[in-house]
Amino acid sequence: MQYIIGVDIGGTNIKLGLFNKKGNLQDKWEITTDISDQGKNIIPDIANTIKSYLTKNKLSIKHCLGIGVGVPGAVSDNLCIGCVNLGWDTLDINKELDKFFPGILIKAENDANCAALGEVYNLGKKYQNACLITIGTGVGGGIIYQDKILAGSNGASGEIGHFKVVFENGRKCGCGKYGCLETVASANGIVEEMKRIVKEGKVKTKFTLDEKFTTKDIFAKKNASDLAVVEVKKIFFHYLGIAVSYLTLVTNPEVVIIGGGVSKGLKNELSEINRYFQKYSFAPSEQTEIILAELLNDAGVFGAAQLIRYA
Amino acid sequence: MQYIIGVDIGGTNIKLGLFNKKGNLQDKWEITTDISDQGKNIIPDIANTIKSYLTKNKLSIKHCLGIGVGVPGAVSDNLCIGCVNLGWDTLDINKELDKFFPGILIKAENDANCAALGEVYNLGKKYQNACLITIGTGVGGGIIYQDKILAGSNGASGEIGHFKVVFENGRKCGCGKYGCLETVASANGIVEEMKRIVKEGKVKTKFTLDEKFTTKDIFAKKNASDLAVVEVKKIFFHYLGIAVSYLTLVTNPEVVIIGGGVSKGLKNELSEINRYFQKYSFAPSEQTEIILAELLNDAGVFGAAQLIRYA
Repeated sequence: MQYIIGVDIGGTNIKLGLFNKKGNLQDKWEITTDISDQGKNIIPDIANTIKSYLTKNKLSIKHCLGIGVGVPGAVSDNLCIGCVNLGWDTLDINKELDKFFPGILIKAENDANCAALGEVYNLGKKYQNACLITIGTGVGGGIIYQDKILAGSNGASGEIGHFKVVFENGRKCGCGKYGCLETVASANGIVEEMKRIVKEGKVKTKFTLDEKFTTKDIFAKKNASDLAVVEVKKIFFHYLGIAVSYLTLVTNPEVVIIGGGVSKGLKNELSEINRYFQKYSFAPSEQTEIILAELLNDAGVFGAAQLIRYA
Repeated sequence: MQYIIGVDIGGTNIKLGLFNKKGNLQDKWEITTDISDQGKNIIPDIANTIKSYLTKNKLSIKHCLGIGVGVPGAVSDNLCIGCVNLGWDTLDINKELDKFFPGILIKAENDANCAALGEVYNLGKKYQNACLITIGTGVGGGIIYQDKILAGSNGASGEIGHFKVVFENGRKCGCGKYGCLETVASANGIVEEMKRIVKEGKVKTKFTLDEKFTTKDIFAKKNASDLAVVEVKKIFFHYLGIAVSYLTLVTNPEVVIIGGGVSKGLKNELSEINRYFQKYSFAPSEQTEIILAELLNDAGVFGAAQLIRYA
């Protein structure tokens, strides 16, 4: 059997998947990410787990069509240009993995771009032009244009978490600048906005600054009628509507897919998000669909395998 | 001699150019745009002026490699999807021109996208990924990705004039919505901002609401120290910096080219525009160059010819 290996490197775990040549998942497993020593064990660990897996399952590396790798950092031509979470500086992923799998096709890409490719693939190629917004601890994005990842000139495309959207008293972002979308519309940003509203004390709420709460608590069904929740959702959908409108104004996709951990709480809110998007959009883009991601945590490893299929 | 014809259809004039097969301009001329009768004379007028030109210059249509056409509206697969300025509803440009030039390759694209292609071509293919911002009566944009126009799913990419950037008391835009970039950072928008500042009366200025003024007057060298001019420029550069940052965050180009009539007054202001861009940008995109367009009014016709070269 000819097969493809997909690898999605995260700061905590590395997800791996065995795919057939059509890109369908056959099996998946994961290992812990060893970020010690500037992450120098990561590539050998990936190589070893793949080799063990192949031996155990009596698969020959000769039948491997390629290994696709998603990396949580900017990647350009298989070259990772700095990846803070893994401790990597510049790293030639192709070259490093080739030491273990000589002659096998290796393709590396940014993980958000891989996730976008994975989600689009999962929709059965219904869309050729799509954008993925991932809302988790931070806000990321990936752009698919004519079935391929739009990676940009140095792998920094789709960095929509850093749209400046707050121009007065914006909070400092992890990127070092102020008022980024990520500071108000990520899991952390939503909590910070809630804290601000509670502190201002203008609306009645059961949330207090004495107790810790998460975005999951804020979006919990039982809290839906809390006035501070209503307010914080309004703010979040406003910013999400802006982000979707900016994306569509630039690349004019057929669909915007919303993924990441926070998207799980948005099932019944799509019409509201769409209402804000319509408010900020431009007529020719108004018909852009907004849908929720389906693969979520598996999107990256799916997309990594697709890198080989479309190589 | 093998040659290409480039056509740039504007609301007032239609520019035409004769190019050699390398895309170098050999000659250019223009005719008036007849927008009467829902613009039904436009295509026949273009055909007739090309035929007259070829006859006069003893050129055979047999040696024509193709005719590229820039249209001031959304274009998808040679199909113009509505063009208000010309009175056109949906129009198959390929089919219409083919009646006059059977069998000749025809390619049509949005005029801002053509202009982007023209400006990038003029820079000698130094850049593969570029964005053009055109600041004239309105604000438009075009995106070149890997040497080609990124047209989007229905020809509405690069519509950056409709980035919503003013969320409180935003003026109504031609698009029907409020607070678009175009309402504050176009030639008209700059004048409106100046009027607002004069009306507020917080800074000393020689500009008054009794006399008409244009963006050219505002940007005139002799008015550079006027306090209202200083203020209006600050606002303009702020919005321009935002627009450049959003563009670079999405598509991560190597260069952003600023064109359109207003760009002529910005020769000495590039460092200031760059300062605002840096404030709003994301580290991996910070090295994106910002330069001024060179071809300006000729960019569209140059780009239209390039459509044939890269067809």
